[in-house]
Amino acid sequence: MTTIMRSEILEQPIAIEKTISQARSLKSDILKLVSKNEIKQIIFFARGTSDNVAMYGFYLFATTCGIYATSGHPSLATSYKSQVSLTNTLAIGISQSGKTAEIVESLQWAKQAGAVTIGVTNTPNSPIFNAADLTVLTQAGQEHAVPATKTFTSALAALAVIAECINAQAFQSGEIDLLPSKILSTFEQQEVVTSFADRLVDQDTAVVTGRGFSVSIASEIALKFQESCYLVSLGISAADLQHGPKAIVDHRLPLLAFLAGENSPVNKTVVDLITKLSTDAASLMIVGPKRAGINTQLHLVLPDTAESLIPIVMAPPAQLVVEATAVAKGLNPDLPRGLTKITQT
Amino acid sequence: MTTIMRSEILEQPIAIEKTISQARSLKSDILKLVSKNEIKQIIFFARGTSDNVAMYGFYLFATTCGIYATSGHPSLATSYKSQVSLTNTLAIGISQSGKTAEIVESLQWAKQAGAVTIGVTNTPNSPIFNAADLTVLTQAGQEHAVPATKTFTSALAALAVIAECINAQAFQSGEIDLLPSKILSTFEQQEVVTSFADRLVDQDTAVVTGRGFSVSIASEIALKFQESCYLVSLGISAADLQHGPKAIVDHRLPLLAFLAGENSPVNKTVVDLITKLSTDAASLMIVGPKRAGINTQLHLVLPDTAESLIPIVMAPPAQLVVEATAVAKGLNPDLPRGLTKITQT
Repeated sequence: MTTIMRSEILEQPIAIEKTISQARSLKSDILKLVSKNEIKQIIFFARGTSDNVAMYGFYLFATTCGIYATSGHPSLATSYKSQVSLTNTLAIGISQSGKTAEIVESLQWAKQAGAVTIGVTNTPNSPIFNAADLTVLTQAGQEHAVPATKTFTSALAALAVIAECINAQAFQSGEIDLLPSKILSTFEQQEVVTSFADRLVDQDTAVVTGRGFSVSIASEIALKFQESCYLVSLGISAADLQHGPKAIVDHRLPLLAFLAGENSPVNKTVVDLITKLSTDAASLMIVGPKRAGINTQLHLVLPDTAESLIPIVMAPPAQLVVEATAVAKGLNPDLPRGLTKITQT
Repeated sequence: MTTIMRSEILEQPIAIEKTISQARSLKSDILKLVSKNEIKQIIFFARGTSDNVAMYGFYLFATTCGIYATSGHPSLATSYKSQVSLTNTLAIGISQSGKTAEIVESLQWAKQAGAVTIGVTNTPNSPIFNAADLTVLTQAGQEHAVPATKTFTSALAALAVIAECINAQAFQSGEIDLLPSKILSTFEQQEVVTSFADRLVDQDTAVVTGRGFSVSIASEIALKFQESCYLVSLGISAADLQHGPKAIVDHRLPLLAFLAGENSPVNKTVVDLITKLSTDAASLMIVGPKRAGINTQLHLVLPDTAESLIPIVMAPPAQLVVEATAVAKGLNPDLPRGLTKITQT
């Protein structure tokens, strides 16, 4: 029996294609919002999976648009009600359901502090539409499995298109449009997915790492391992892993690394670290392009992709690993214990 | 035999007292730097323990000074060399050694982008002095154990004094000066420390949580558990824990929560969550004031303290728990496997 999670993972090429087209239709509105307010920085409000989308945005907007982007802290808005100035700021709130109250409230707070606001959601007519100056509706269709998969990558694609709207030269021409077919091509490695799940099925813990653009995916897949496989997993930048946490690595701990490829300026530091750690770890699994600077049998190969877009190609095959691990563990990934689709904090 | 880590933990009242006095001596310089540049936001560059200091800063500066504060991302400076504008921005780099190359480089990058810069370090005449417009030298004295303890809280205290320099009304009069004696008073609960270590000695994993101001301490203590006890531990905001990761909680997983007390606007959400989770968890341990909104035997009691300063009082007794757990596990917390005092990435 196929799980709902697996079906939804496989829907991603279509979801991404539709989302790109939808987001592009808002180009003039996005451009107007950004230019009339002389945006110098972007702050994100999000939780859980959506927060991992935001993490992609930090690297995306700084490198492709020259706009410093970083994380907001919802409790500063909703609980502490701090009084700050956010002029020349674009606040982006991300919520799959569009009704996570603290994200909606955070956008209202940011607006009062002088920011302009964009919502990113997968749910038509949800409260975030009223809170934001403009809302990008991702086109993943309704998501039924509790762990977010297609709504995650659709939101990543929405950010990529927002970057493209702000700077037409953000990516090479046509690069975004290749994403759906690239994702589709990653689905051909079911044997590798199974071999990863074999390494994970008897484990209780995992470390998932990457750096720069790939940190967003490392964090997201670690979160999926927590939700769907009940692994106590750490999603962490390789630079942070180096600063202490690497002491936990031993023969019981599998290591999964996301590599952007040899052209990435951060690739070598990640390769160097995981190569060293792999002698102590239970296993080392890699997701990245063929030329990733490391040789291992456990390699989920991605098509060559610009680093600024590769997270969107990295996520789907890694989500398949999560699903396969959950099923191998005898768990139902569609309905993790204690979780529901909308979370209020 | 007393470990070096334990001796250094116990030195904190003196280290904090000296640091407060040193940082206050820079008041007019700090004020000049901030006012002449019309600072509207603060960004932090830090890794590991220092990054947990920064996390305290996010909440501190927004609530006490009305300045939005958030995390920089060193690789955007050092690897991606992104071109952004950081006018009206104060960049604070934190490095115990003062020579973590990427932090030094990140400050230089921020300066080129238009920011003014402050360094926070424990090492006199270290490279960060040259990179920053102004450097606050914490007065922890040399730290010999690899896991940072007294340099962590000294850096927290340095930030509190910077906030006080920017806004003389940041705290109630004399509140900062009470910190050393408050920390000292927490050291009287050795029995509670031992009872926490008893719950942790046979565990391989842990979840450490808090919210708002307390997240910095939850993250730091989780890091210490990783480094010193080789626990695969998750340091996570209660709001994020709610969004998925809570699925991992079961009878093998101890839960440690930092509570700021009933006056904190985020306290109730944390209490509600951990109360629910405690029925499934291996154990629930609390660090917080007497009136923390929860009844449990496993309670390290803190003196009542304003939420904006309580992280400085929370950390030392929790560090004692880490040290006791490492010793109970038969490990040497002073020299974790694979780690050294200065990390380059």
